[in-house]
Amino acid sequence: MGGENIPHHCGVFGIYNHPQAARITQLGLFALQHRGEEAAGICSSDGDELHLIKGQGLVGEVFNDGSFDRLPGNHAIGHVRYSTAGSSILTDTQPYKVEYSRGQIAIGHNGNLVNAQILRAQLEAYGSIFGSMMDSEIFVHLIAKPAYRSHEEGIVESVKRVVGAYSLVILTEEQLYGVRDPHGLRPLCLGKLGDSYVLASETCAFDLIEAKFIREVEPGEVVVIDRKGVRSHFPHKGMEGMGHQISQCIFEHVYFARPDSRIFHDNVGLVRERLGHQLAKEHPAKADIVIPVPDSGTFAALGFSRESGIPLSFGFIRNHYIGRTFISPTEAGRSIKVKIKLNPIREMVEGKRVVVVDDSIVRGNTAKNRVKLLRGAGAKEIHMRISCPPHVSPCYYGIDFPSKKELIAANQSASMIRKFLEVDSLGYLSLEGMLAATTQPPSHFCTACFSGKYPTPVFDEQDKLKPENKKVKCRGA
Amino acid sequence: MGGENIPHHCGVFGIYNHPQAARITQLGLFALQHRGEEAAGICSSDGDELHLIKGQGLVGEVFNDGSFDRLPGNHAIGHVRYSTAGSSILTDTQPYKVEYSRGQIAIGHNGNLVNAQILRAQLEAYGSIFGSMMDSEIFVHLIAKPAYRSHEEGIVESVKRVVGAYSLVILTEEQLYGVRDPHGLRPLCLGKLGDSYVLASETCAFDLIEAKFIREVEPGEVVVIDRKGVRSHFPHKGMEGMGHQISQCIFEHVYFARPDSRIFHDNVGLVRERLGHQLAKEHPAKADIVIPVPDSGTFAALGFSRESGIPLSFGFIRNHYIGRTFISPTEAGRSIKVKIKLNPIREMVEGKRVVVVDDSIVRGNTAKNRVKLLRGAGAKEIHMRISCPPHVSPCYYGIDFPSKKELIAANQSASMIRKFLEVDSLGYLSLEGMLAATTQPPSHFCTACFSGKYPTPVFDEQDKLKPENKKVKCRGA
Amino acid sequence: MGGENIPHHCGVFGIYNHPQAARITQLGLFALQHRGEEAAGICSSDGDELHLIKGQGLVGEVFNDGSFDRLPGNHAIGHVRYSTAGSSILTDTQPYKVEYSRGQIAIGHNGNLVNAQILRAQLEAYGSIFGSMMDSEIFVHLIAKPAYRSHEEGIVESVKRVVGAYSLVILTEEQLYGVRDPHGLRPLCLGKLGDSYVLASETCAFDLIEAKFIREVEPGEVVVIDRKGVRSHFPHKGMEGMGHQISQCIFEHVYFARPDSRIFHDNVGLVRERLGHQLAKEHPAKADIVIPVPDSGTFAALGFSRESGIPLSFGFIRNHYIGRTFISPTEAGRSIKVKIKLNPIREMVEGKRVVVVDDSIVRGNTAKNRVKLLRGAGAKEIHMRISCPPHVSPCYYGIDFPSKKELIAANQSASMIRKFLEVDSLGYLSLEGMLAATTQPPSHFCTACFSGKYPTPVFDEQDKLKPENKKVKCRGA
Amino acid sequence: MGGENIPHHCGVFGIYNHPQAARITQLGLFALQHRGEEAAGICSSDGDELHLIKGQGLVGEVFNDGSFDRLPGNHAIGHVRYSTAGSSILTDTQPYKVEYSRGQIAIGHNGNLVNAQILRAQLEAYGSIFGSMMDSEIFVHLIAKPAYRSHEEGIVESVKRVVGAYSLVILTEEQLYGVRDPHGLRPLCLGKLGDSYVLASETCAFDLIEAKFIREVEPGEVVVIDRKGVRSHFPHKGMEGMGHQISQCIFEHVYFARPDSRIFHDNVGLVRERLGHQLAKEHPAKADIVIPVPDSGTFAALGFSRESGIPLSFGFIRNHYIGRTFISPTEAGRSIKVKIKLNPIREMVEGKRVVVVDDSIVRGNTAKNRVKLLRGAGAKEIHMRISCPPHVSPCYYGIDFPSKKELIAANQSASMIRKFLEVDSLGYLSLEGMLAATTQPPSHFCTACFSGKYPTPVFDEQDKLKPENKKVKCRGA
Repeated sequence: MGGENIPHHCGVFGIYNHPQAARITQLGLFALQHRGEEAAGICSSDGDELHLIKGQGLVGEVFNDGSFDRLPGNHAIGHVRYSTAGSSILTDTQPYKVEYSRGQIAIGHNGNLVNAQILRAQLEAYGSIFGSMMDSEIFVHLIAKPAYRSHEEGIVESVKRVVGAYSLVILTEEQLYGVRDPHGLRPLCLGKLGDSYVLASETCAFDLIEAKFIREVEPGEVVVIDRKGVRSHFPHKGMEGMGHQISQCIFEHVYFARPDSRIFHDNVGLVRERLGHQLAKEHPAKADIVIPVPDSGTFAALGFSRESGIPLSFGFIRNHYIGRTFISPTEAGRSIKVKIKLNPIREMVEGKRVVVVDDSIVRGNTAKNRVKLLRGAGAKEIHMRISCPPHVSPCYYGIDFPSKKELIAANQSASMIRKFLEVDSLGYLSLEGMLAATTQPPSHFCTACFSGKYPTPVFDEQDKLKPENKKVKCRGA
Repeated sequence: MGGENIPHHCGVFGIYNHPQAARITQLGLFALQHRGEEAAGICSSDGDELHLIKGQGLVGEVFNDGSFDRLPGNHAIGHVRYSTAGSSILTDTQPYKVEYSRGQIAIGHNGNLVNAQILRAQLEAYGSIFGSMMDSEIFVHLIAKPAYRSHEEGIVESVKRVVGAYSLVILTEEQLYGVRDPHGLRPLCLGKLGDSYVLASETCAFDLIEAKFIREVEPGEVVVIDRKGVRSHFPHKGMEGMGHQISQCIFEHVYFARPDSRIFHDNVGLVRERLGHQLAKEHPAKADIVIPVPDSGTFAALGFSRESGIPLSFGFIRNHYIGRTFISPTEAGRSIKVKIKLNPIREMVEGKRVVVVDDSIVRGNTAKNRVKLLRGAGAKEIHMRISCPPHVSPCYYGIDFPSKKELIAANQSASMIRKFLEVDSLGYLSLEGMLAATTQPPSHFCTACFSGKYPTPVFDEQDKLKPENKKVKCRGA
Repeated sequence: MGGENIPHHCGVFGIYNHPQAARITQLGLFALQHRGEEAAGICSSDGDELHLIKGQGLVGEVFNDGSFDRLPGNHAIGHVRYSTAGSSILTDTQPYKVEYSRGQIAIGHNGNLVNAQILRAQLEAYGSIFGSMMDSEIFVHLIAKPAYRSHEEGIVESVKRVVGAYSLVILTEEQLYGVRDPHGLRPLCLGKLGDSYVLASETCAFDLIEAKFIREVEPGEVVVIDRKGVRSHFPHKGMEGMGHQISQCIFEHVYFARPDSRIFHDNVGLVRERLGHQLAKEHPAKADIVIPVPDSGTFAALGFSRESGIPLSFGFIRNHYIGRTFISPTEAGRSIKVKIKLNPIREMVEGKRVVVVDDSIVRGNTAKNRVKLLRGAGAKEIHMRISCPPHVSPCYYGIDFPSKKELIAANQSASMIRKFLEVDSLGYLSLEGMLAATTQPPSHFCTACFSGKYPTPVFDEQDKLKPENKKVKCRGA
Repeated sequence: MGGENIPHHCGVFGIYNHPQAARITQLGLFALQHRGEEAAGICSSDGDELHLIKGQGLVGEVFNDGSFDRLPGNHAIGHVRYSTAGSSILTDTQPYKVEYSRGQIAIGHNGNLVNAQILRAQLEAYGSIFGSMMDSEIFVHLIAKPAYRSHEEGIVESVKRVVGAYSLVILTEEQLYGVRDPHGLRPLCLGKLGDSYVLASETCAFDLIEAKFIREVEPGEVVVIDRKGVRSHFPHKGMEGMGHQISQCIFEHVYFARPDSRIFHDNVGLVRERLGHQLAKEHPAKADIVIPVPDSGTFAALGFSRESGIPLSFGFIRNHYIGRTFISPTEAGRSIKVKIKLNPIREMVEGKRVVVVDDSIVRGNTAKNRVKLLRGAGAKEIHMRISCPPHVSPCYYGIDFPSKKELIAANQSASMIRKFLEVDSLGYLSLEGMLAATTQPPSHFCTACFSGKYPTPVFDEQDKLKPENKKVKCRGA
């Protein structure tokens, strides 16, 4: 699925009390770049005032040496995001920074609120104006309510009103906050670097800056970091109607997170290996070699190979130069467009029975084209193995899957898909098998995109509660 | 003074009912480029939704052919601005566009509010958040008050609460507004182009697009343009404490506006010629030639030459390639920095008694260096003539003069300035002489920067009313 | 004609023995920017090796602070050029630098050779390869002939073989050369800045860097500047068939050079004023005002006004923001395209009999459109006065006039042109009148574009000598 | 070694008779991007004239959609190159195109001549001028010799005079040439795409454009492709003193070429797997896991794992966003600089005995830092295995290894290196073992960088023949 370009959602980072706060934040964002390639921003605080630079592009493009003179101070937060095509990109870039009655505040958000439209309508009815489509702007409007006496109270009270997925980093003049929704849908980790505290979506950011992982921010927790140290709130505790059920996004393990990260109490690479082992148990194949679709299928393919005893082979070569700068000629045939990214090695696959391991199938076209490439390179049999169950439902929590209409598995049976892909066999990992690959209780994960069971109410466009999978118009990421 | 780079403030443009609204707006902004070189923006409406593109740079840099596909619709407003160095430039670029309870609205502002801080504090106390330092954001917060029933009511009521200078263009889904403060401090004109109505800071924008000038928007008027045609409100009529005295910025005539524009019921070029005539009457000189400091002193020099009978000569050549791209080497001497812009022609001035006509003296250093250049080129006598009175007070209405401390005339007598500049004589035009150059009653102009008499109350940084000239921290332009 | 955009040809600069040679060269090129806006280059020598940076764009775009670290050394030459549309711009950018048997050499050329094709064919026949279409490459091939014993001998001998217009700056590891063709078609001046010697196309470059003008390089002179000082060669002296007749391009005075420059022993601005005086004598008019087409007609208009007693007025305003960044919408009408550059002031011209002074008419369309603008602004009568004779013949010496077919005066009588332009009267300055405006003997100027009399043989495309005006394919500028 | 950034040399591509020649060339260069990331160029022929676009940057940066309108014609060649830091990059970009007596010619070169200085001196002695430091310019000077009667004769005769490594693509108005030096040091392949013939450094370029591989251009062969079809010359046949010994660069297999390419009659990926098998035989280890240094060590690690039975594991994660845009803060510690590229997965290596497989060690610092990372991640034992012998001698054939002084293996024994790296054991593959990994006779490979035995004479800087390994100043790549 790596090849189908499911847009990554967002990554957040924060640091408190470091003389090079903005520079360290840049490094942290660089490590989180895979979570958002379209825009990046850093907001720093010098104790009195917040300073902000953001722009379109990769971290290395948005910031240069000169940037850091304009980002003074010992505290900072940062954000990388992917951006829906056609949207007013710059306006919707984060962190989102404002001034209000109690001072300055900036916020970076990973996730998606499901009651965004309702909240917005309510706020507007009281005179609020909105300059963007971002959920972070909603958060700030809620926080700015005059009744609260401090940034802290505003933040703690506000999160009670929002529903959905959110891992937040929030910066004020003198405080750094880390917030995670009660379901813990998106990851957020707490670390320490000398005398500084750091927050990051994934631990790979800690590795790069050589910070020590302390623990994950807990679902439903608001972590406050300031001069006095670190303290926690659990604003939803005892709130009626809140199931408080932990429901972490399993697809972070399957696809999004970096394999060297630790999230949801497991190393991602190891989970993927175990997905491969499980897959080999559930869907064995008589084959000569196992090849991954790089890079997303690499770990699962290794697991499959080990479990099955079928030798691993690198039958596809990925071209890493592909990027926003190279646009394939519009006249180029479809197969060239696929090959620009992946090229099969004939010498590896010719005459062989091949197991191909990938992380997922979304629309099916990309997978089909890769099968064609392998056939063209002489593969005798092709057995496709997918390290998660079929995708049948949309995600309302920040992942931009195509609509149900376009999801092949929502519309076709496994056998139809097998025929469509023209493979000799096709095996999806079972829901149970997938959940078994982590060390956590199965009930601690959100599997909505596979099962249609959503951990929160979801709303239709008229803001009416609906049973499930009609997608709300998302306002953020 | 052209050489001292007083930042121009802003220019606004609007058009209603034209199939190429955004393109025409681009042309209009191009004609108004002298009013703001740092940033430009266009917001268009397709009847349902507003579309916005803005960025740093000249009009020709911010927009390209592709821009206009992303600015659909028959109505549009545009803005050019200069931007305080170091400010978060992109955030403060206009038009400022938001969504609120009654729909979408975008606003472009030329001027400066003097009660911005008070309004902001009040709004924040009720939960408003501010993402920028722009007055246009204050306007929108006021307009968004839930009590009003329409965009129109919101706009009409809001302008009653603001104090200061504002010429506004406002765009909603289906309406275009032109607003001018009760003092008429900044210009705003209404025109017609076929079936379309247009608004612009200066008529030179109408000339370029071949629109017909109808009239100036009147001080205190809110013009509403929509499907039903054009109608007017005068929200301040009868408001207590409003002197309603017309008080147009005389410095628009002296320096800011383009000489081919008609504003405040006069052609700017003709006014400048008359300033020159008046100057020659008040401060005659025995001299061989009259030379302008190009381009700002050109018209006044012509008037001086005609009145005095002393031949005009072009003794300075201006290099028009100078711009943001050419940075003079830091090692370069001061005289090189002046010469990069202006070079004297030795053959024109050598051995001559020279009258030099410029529009103003601010700090005095630039003028002094030019005098040196002329001496170096062999001028025998130098008689400096300035086509306005000495600048002694700050402007709170959108012009970024240096602080009183830096204004040479606020701190030194004319005779001291003469010595400082090392000229043989120095003559400033009198206040009366300056006002006599227009066809309007003298009382219709704001002369605060020359006289210290402000047409509105002005506030200090603690938001306390103060008698006069302590400058408030400006929030907009 | 300023409005018709006759491409300027080129400007050259050189400096010997200055610790900031490249930076001073940048300043010099900036002053010469009007001679070439499309590309710029600087080559410096550190005594051992030459260093080169060149690129497309204005001087301020091609070089930045970092450039000068990569241009070390005490000697440098620079070049600005205009570039024929569509040509491989970068390849043809100068200075042209090579290594050959006697070391390294770089050359900057202003002018055009008329025997370029013949020389090229001869050189190729002996095995030379050509990487560009530039004449400077031909020069270097000639210089590299093995027979010569030094750079100096190579240069002195080579110029004997070329025919046409050339003002050259040449840099070797330890020497700077200035070369001017025997006709002196293009200007080249020698100056001194402290202990450094400088060369420049025009003296305005000396003014900016505060160098002292010494003298012009003489027609036919090769100036050598090195450790031993300055010495001269006159390679053509006594050569058979060389008329040695000075024949300087009169159009430099009429249009190309900057008015503050001194070239061909006269100040350009003064010559233009005298052209205006002469024009008023030859073609008086009954009129109310004289207005220049800015900026090219400004000085001549002043002269016309003084001579005729008709008051000068600034009836056209030029928009200096126009540049490569602003592209007028293709849908825009023709009159908008003209107005984007120049706008008439109705209040100045309405109801008036107007004399319009411009430097030349090439195709006639631009002039016609300006006449329309004036009529639209209410001018009662329009009397067009041109400060040179009609253009009837192409230039083979570096000015890119349109072909004879497109030159309106080569195909129509003055009376037909008058009707085409729809003016009430039209007056071109006479050849004699034009020549009388300088202080030099009339015979010292090339007037080929007006008279068809070329100071050198000119060749057709088959490299056959031809009587006159069939244009050779030019290879340089 | 991937981490030590040995600059790749160059890649070449050519196509004859395709309506989209330039676009296909762009695709071909994109597939060859790993051979040169610093600059790219395409030259096309429309039958009459050659057209050229080249520039700094990746293929996707140098060319855009508009480029192809300026590259018309059915034939084209292309080139990607890496460029020595600080060199006048643009000047040395290829293809190199010139005009000479027999028409136009463009050349793209992969390799390095060892008698470049001698040839250059000879050519200069006869009057040649050199605008660049590229070997391709030397080729063209040789070809342009007047004695030859055609492009073809010039090319065939010229290659007899050069000594060294060269795989060339040459384009004339109506012909495409592919040339490979008699030793076959660099690869060059011939393919067919419909009615078109194609040439490419590696077959991965054929895969992308869906061309069929025909055969490799043979060592010493000149392939001429034109209207009449394909024909061959072997210019060196029978030449005295030419050993004609095939001597292909073994390091193409070890490191440079893409694993999906077929060069020198073998698939690169398979060769690398066999290097790993061989390595496991020669240097077994008692260990728990085998991990590659991605991506350069991946295939050899797989081979090692298979041969040894020790499980493969992906213990390092590579960040592919690293590129020219991201510059690590100068303040960052050394370990951060290494981690920015590679991050170890603690969960994979902690407490394990680890075999690390990489392709080579050059200076040793990068390897040392990676060892530190693994120790930091908890590895118990580290056994480093290198899939080639120690590098002890410079390459004169186009690979920019550091000087002998900097090559760790040229100065230290294996046991010293082991201590320096702080590994528990270190094993380099033997020369014989390396050569055994291909299917070709061992004598068919150049192993100079490992053995110091050069297949050609090599010259010192005074152009004297020298026994071996004093490096000539290279002039090309």
